[in-house]
Amino acid sequence: MKRIIFLLVAVATLAGVIAFKARASHHSATQEAAPIFVTQIPDGYRDWRLVSVAHEEGNLNSFASILGNDIAIKAYREGRLPFPDGAIIAALHYRFIPSAENNKAFGRDQSFVAGAPTNVQFMVKDSKKYAATGGWGFGHFNSDGKTVDDAFMKTCFPCHPKMKERDLVFTRYSP
Amino acid sequence: MKRIIFLLVAVATLAGVIAFKARASHHSATQEAAPIFVTQIPDGYRDWRLVSVAHEEGNLNSFASILGNDIAIKAYREGRLPFPDGAIIAALHYRFIPSAENNKAFGRDQSFVAGAPTNVQFMVKDSKKYAATGGWGFGHFNSDGKTVDDAFMKTCFPCHPKMKERDLVFTRYSP
Repeated sequence: MKRIIFLLVAVATLAGVIAFKARASHHSATQEAAPIFVTQIPDGYRDWRLVSVAHEEGNLNSFASILGNDIAIKAYREGRLPFPDGAIIAALHYRFIPSAENNKAFGRDQSFVAGAPTNVQFMVKDSKKYAATGGWGFGHFNSDGKTVDDAFMKTCFPCHPKMKERDLVFTRYSP
Repeated sequence: MKRIIFLLVAVATLAGVIAFKARASHHSATQEAAPIFVTQIPDGYRDWRLVSVAHEEGNLNSFASILGNDIAIKAYREGRLPFPDGAIIAALHYRFIPSAENNKAFGRDQSFVAGAPTNVQFMVKDSKKYAATGGWGFGHFNSDGKTVDDAFMKTCFPCHPKMKERDLVFTRYSP
């Protein structure tokens, strides 16, 4: 009888442990819904086609060319929203600098070109993997190829939902 | 004898005519060395890869993305000068406009984007066809697809030789 009671207690305990683990696992899944970021530079992005160009003044002082992989370009051209899984958009950032040689050739100060590269940013569409951030994974790689810390990366997502009507994407396609 | 003299005169005359025609033909070839321009938009240029970006202030107020066909991109990446025949460089021009929606999202006025397309310009390398203009044919097509008059086109070449050390090409490749 003692042995049966021991067995029942053991089974009950095991059930409890399993239940606890299941809860813990569920809790852990919820935790994983916190932002996760793009940690690898997508292959061949420098060969992708053009979406458009952009310039930010102020501290950024950046000159950007925005490129898209084939899936992204197709979606842009078809006006397809939301972007399908597999779409990747790359923003190649350079310093925005006056061109002394162009200005000399033109005979007036009017010309700005891309200076040194500063960073490349990516938005990778994977509606499951990046469900917590609108289906987009965000990536930032400085010109040395290194990514940045999570504190920096957490500043990406809060701003992008302001473009909710364009699936969180700022850049419009230029014909 | 009369017949022989007649024949000699006839041959001499014919030779003279041939010589004159040859001179005329040579003269005509020299005339053809006056600038000739690119009259057809190269196929598929919007799918070409990025060379770099540029901005011109003032009256132009333009935002450009400069693209290259495969031959041009290969030459750029290998640092090959002069560009080989078949290289084509395209400058896609848009209005340079502030982005009200980006500025609103960022909370400050700092963002400029590509507005309406204005024109696309081409440099087509063909060292024989365009020998009179440094081996480059120049083309300009407004956003309606129409080219412009020769008076306008003649303003292209005088400026480009200022970039003689880069084979008349202003735009440098951005990594």
